[in-house]
Amino acid sequence: MRLGTVARSGSTQAFRQEAGETVYLPVPDVGALLAGGDLSLPGEPGPAPAPEELLTPVLRPGKILCAGLNFHDHAEEVGQEIPEHPTIFAKYANALVGPVDPIAMPEESEKIDWEAELVAVIGTTVRHADAGRARAAIAGYTIMNDVSVRDWQGRTSEWFQGKNFDRTTPVGPVVVTPDEVDPEAGLAVRCTVDGVRHQDSSTDRMIFSAVQLVEYLTRFMTLEPGDLVACGTPAGVGLAKKPRRIWLRDGQEVVTEIEGIGELRNVCTPAEDLLPR
Amino acid sequence: MRLGTVARSGSTQAFRQEAGETVYLPVPDVGALLAGGDLSLPGEPGPAPAPEELLTPVLRPGKILCAGLNFHDHAEEVGQEIPEHPTIFAKYANALVGPVDPIAMPEESEKIDWEAELVAVIGTTVRHADAGRARAAIAGYTIMNDVSVRDWQGRTSEWFQGKNFDRTTPVGPVVVTPDEVDPEAGLAVRCTVDGVRHQDSSTDRMIFSAVQLVEYLTRFMTLEPGDLVACGTPAGVGLAKKPRRIWLRDGQEVVTEIEGIGELRNVCTPAEDLLPR
Repeated sequence: MRLGTVARSGSTQAFRQEAGETVYLPVPDVGALLAGGDLSLPGEPGPAPAPEELLTPVLRPGKILCAGLNFHDHAEEVGQEIPEHPTIFAKYANALVGPVDPIAMPEESEKIDWEAELVAVIGTTVRHADAGRARAAIAGYTIMNDVSVRDWQGRTSEWFQGKNFDRTTPVGPVVVTPDEVDPEAGLAVRCTVDGVRHQDSSTDRMIFSAVQLVEYLTRFMTLEPGDLVACGTPAGVGLAKKPRRIWLRDGQEVVTEIEGIGELRNVCTPAEDLLPR
Repeated sequence: MRLGTVARSGSTQAFRQEAGETVYLPVPDVGALLAGGDLSLPGEPGPAPAPEELLTPVLRPGKILCAGLNFHDHAEEVGQEIPEHPTIFAKYANALVGPVDPIAMPEESEKIDWEAELVAVIGTTVRHADAGRARAAIAGYTIMNDVSVRDWQGRTSEWFQGKNFDRTTPVGPVVVTPDEVDPEAGLAVRCTVDGVRHQDSSTDRMIFSAVQLVEYLTRFMTLEPGDLVACGTPAGVGLAKKPRRIWLRDGQEVVTEIEGIGELRNVCTPAEDLLPR
């Protein structure tokens, strides 16, 4: 099953896809669908949405929890030990954009980098989960590009300010339920910039699996429907390129793919050229 | 003017206090009042609420942005240079409790510490603010104790997981508008544990003022009504005590005061003894 959110005549609407059929649902987004607790909610059949109609599936996630340093190949390329505990940082919804929206390139930086990531979307309220309950709390998986403003990220010990520029983080295109995709079995994760493939790894190279991250997070906090858990990026980020670092430039197209889920396709656009939302 | 939120017959309600009179308002909390944009909303006069009726003023802030290392005396006690840029980390609403609620002491740690802090409460949507607009965007000030789980905070470079245990962060008792309190003029900030005063500083010793923090944050993100900006803690945290560190223990009462705003009064209570919310 695939769940998504579209823009529709000035409003928004969730949809469900199964066995080639699309059903439009009486809720404004996948977040509301998950909060309602009934994924089989009745709706109206309709044509499959065009890619450009798709919005980020959960419009205003309550939490966007991100794991850093969570791929063996990425920890190695940035010269870090394999960590004993997950490294967690936070984003807020203002950072998000949809699967084909422009990435708002801040003029305050020239060191803007890509980070293809798997995202687990939480479907139930959960605290103190064991592995089984953590697995059951994941409603499905989607894709993020955790576009990172490296100079701001490195200003202090806390990465927050490099990870929260408005409209820099595409998420989508849909949420795919766990019966259709199994990250632990290995899903290809790729990031391509203007046709050059920079990241090409697999979700089975994660240090902590999505299930383990959910289990860990619920040791200290309650997760709720619509919360996102981003699982970290593999090797190939611009920061680690040799002999010199590479950064995103205005006008470039970033394609972020995860096998079995789909792709994000976003053009780097000067933030000052974008209309306020 | 003072704005607050009370529990009322199974629901919640905002109130406003001015010239000794309390008016109960037709909105569920200070967050909804700020989002509505009309602080002079008509309501019903009533008796002043008892301290034990008070909830955290904004029940579910969209963002809780916290500055670390923002007092000259605290940076010194933990051996850090005076930073060039604010250090920012994030909390989510699940961490919050009210001004007289128990602090939920996680059994996963024995290194739980106090951090008295001034909080600016955002009243308008604001981005790219200069100092004047940043000042105008602050609806008022309240108090936080950024209770910190030090061992989890120090597990990785990112402090997030030590700052987001459920129900560890009291905020309140009310939001006081800037015509009544001026942090730049110096408001006493104090934290007392079982009658022993550990923190006793003034908001004029902040490295970045509340207005400067709002200005800085809006360089990269949009702030919205009800967002909280916590301004960092002064010297005197348990982590920096000599000859040995001191931590909070179950049963202790933590009193957090800021001159002109009021106080938080919270008892450290084992998390497992608290009912689920």
